[in-house]
Amino acid sequence: MTNNGPLTIRVKASGEYDILITEGAIFSVGTYIKKVIPLCKIAIVTDDTVDKLYSQMVFDSLVTNGYQVVKYVFPHGEQSKNIDTYGDILNFLTENDLTRTDCIVALGGGVVGDMAGFAAATYLRGIKYVQIPTTLLAQIDSSVGGKTAIDLKKGKNLVGAFCQPRLVVCDITTLYTLPANVFDEGMGEAAKYALLDEKIYDLLKSDVRDLKKLIYLCVDYKRKVVENDEFEKGERKLLNLGHTVAHGIERLSEYKIPHGKAVAMGLYAILKASLKNKFIDKKTYEEMLDVISKIAPEHDCPFSIEQIANASLNDKKRSGDNITLVTVHGVGDCRLTTVKIQDLTEFLS
Amino acid sequence: MTNNGPLTIRVKASGEYDILITEGAIFSVGTYIKKVIPLCKIAIVTDDTVDKLYSQMVFDSLVTNGYQVVKYVFPHGEQSKNIDTYGDILNFLTENDLTRTDCIVALGGGVVGDMAGFAAATYLRGIKYVQIPTTLLAQIDSSVGGKTAIDLKKGKNLVGAFCQPRLVVCDITTLYTLPANVFDEGMGEAAKYALLDEKIYDLLKSDVRDLKKLIYLCVDYKRKVVENDEFEKGERKLLNLGHTVAHGIERLSEYKIPHGKAVAMGLYAILKASLKNKFIDKKTYEEMLDVISKIAPEHDCPFSIEQIANASLNDKKRSGDNITLVTVHGVGDCRLTTVKIQDLTEFLS
Repeated sequence: MTNNGPLTIRVKASGEYDILITEGAIFSVGTYIKKVIPLCKIAIVTDDTVDKLYSQMVFDSLVTNGYQVVKYVFPHGEQSKNIDTYGDILNFLTENDLTRTDCIVALGGGVVGDMAGFAAATYLRGIKYVQIPTTLLAQIDSSVGGKTAIDLKKGKNLVGAFCQPRLVVCDITTLYTLPANVFDEGMGEAAKYALLDEKIYDLLKSDVRDLKKLIYLCVDYKRKVVENDEFEKGERKLLNLGHTVAHGIERLSEYKIPHGKAVAMGLYAILKASLKNKFIDKKTYEEMLDVISKIAPEHDCPFSIEQIANASLNDKKRSGDNITLVTVHGVGDCRLTTVKIQDLTEFLS
Repeated sequence: MTNNGPLTIRVKASGEYDILITEGAIFSVGTYIKKVIPLCKIAIVTDDTVDKLYSQMVFDSLVTNGYQVVKYVFPHGEQSKNIDTYGDILNFLTENDLTRTDCIVALGGGVVGDMAGFAAATYLRGIKYVQIPTTLLAQIDSSVGGKTAIDLKKGKNLVGAFCQPRLVVCDITTLYTLPANVFDEGMGEAAKYALLDEKIYDLLKSDVRDLKKLIYLCVDYKRKVVENDEFEKGERKLLNLGHTVAHGIERLSEYKIPHGKAVAMGLYAILKASLKNKFIDKKTYEEMLDVISKIAPEHDCPFSIEQIANASLNDKKRSGDNITLVTVHGVGDCRLTTVKIQDLTEFLS
């Protein structure tokens, strides 16, 4: 693996597509898209923050390559990821006469990708879409696997569809414009991968500065999981490590604590629970803390375990009176553990 | 085939399930559901008209069989089939803590089935659902094939998903409570099947009174088509016979002309176009008119061909500058014909 030129990861899910990890591809993204999407009308869906930074170059590159382009911009942030914005996007698509042979380009972070993807999955019962994730979190996580979603009042990602993009273009130069806290969010998610995969764990132990390699390894790990279990019947559930707790924290904070930071908090909570329930020994626990704290330092969680356990009851992973958590049993050895709802507080505390 | 006991049609699509055609099954529908859905929480989704007639017996039968049951009722009619009602249903599901192992029962006509089905397809990225279609149109058409949808401002069924139910229970005794115009709507759709399938054509030529047999043949015809082409890449498009024109008429009438009546108008328009473009001869044309008019008499269409052609431009079947119509070339011989947008008025006039 060299640091020059795009790295390509081929995903073989229900749809087969490439994820490109590049430095600078956003300037000429139309040429990459043209290899997989015949000339058509493209709707760029983005938020106001990303719009100012990258819309124009993406727009120009698409037009230069012969596409008709329209653009929909919504206010940035998780609070936009709701059914109203979803409806607005759909109405925008009809107003601009997008047909079944046309395409959506999701340009932005996870919120943009999730919502534009859900619109693409359901508009006319499904049109093509391409993702250009511009945050670290979106590049290593939501860009892989075809999960699309919007939030409801009661929780995050409660509505959605599985829908694979036709192409994902990650440009790590877009990460240089991220505010530090948004970059750190991605590192919270990267810390999750470190516990799931030995190669990533070892990379972090030795050298955390090779961002392109880190992104490549995270995406490639998720690719393997998604190929084995696209519709999350088994193995893919491991990717929810830290997430049940994280979703509870996000909900309690009314989504003021961002996802990646909540994931980091969730990881620390699950590591503690894994130690307490004797899934790992004290030495392993401490080494793991040391490794993940390199990229995702521990922060005080403002909520009690009781509050978090209560808030987790609306998690999608709940099934009747049980909830399935991912627990840590060793480096690269995470497992599903089913806990009764009434025992959740005790399990985590 | 006898007239006693349920007739069962097994559909082998991406999900495999039974469609039961019965007389009176609605009173004991819980026993049929119990054969395929493990005990769980069930949300009945229905409209206010059907609620008054059938909710209580379905509710009781489900409770008797051990299910926890909640109910969501919305105002009847196509105008409810929008993103607001969809959002309300989703919020109702979270408020009642439905999890991934729970189930939706769609009780009602096509609007209920389409919308409850779309909610089931997308809530938590998909939960189980059962359909109890209570109109002729829903029994012979929307209950088969897993198409779910809602409308947007600019047109019908512009958003949706493919999602197969776990069971469909048609009870023809529910058709006895239908207003005549709603029953006739179903006959408009049945007339479509008569042109697509020789067996149905022959049944109508000889005897139109055997409703159970008519429903059985229509459902079984659609089953075959859906099994061959679940995601509408080819053959399934034939089921859109009369529908491009019908959707235009519905849109122009602001959905005051109901779907089945618009389909009948669409069939007459397409038959005329098929004669004019010499796909059928005058004799065939007249016999076809005679047969379909037995169940779906011709009504004056209040719109001009120009108006309808313009309104059809937002049809999902449009692809770039072309639109694909289904044309009639003989009994049981309908074909896809691609027409350029600018030639559509001439083609139909």
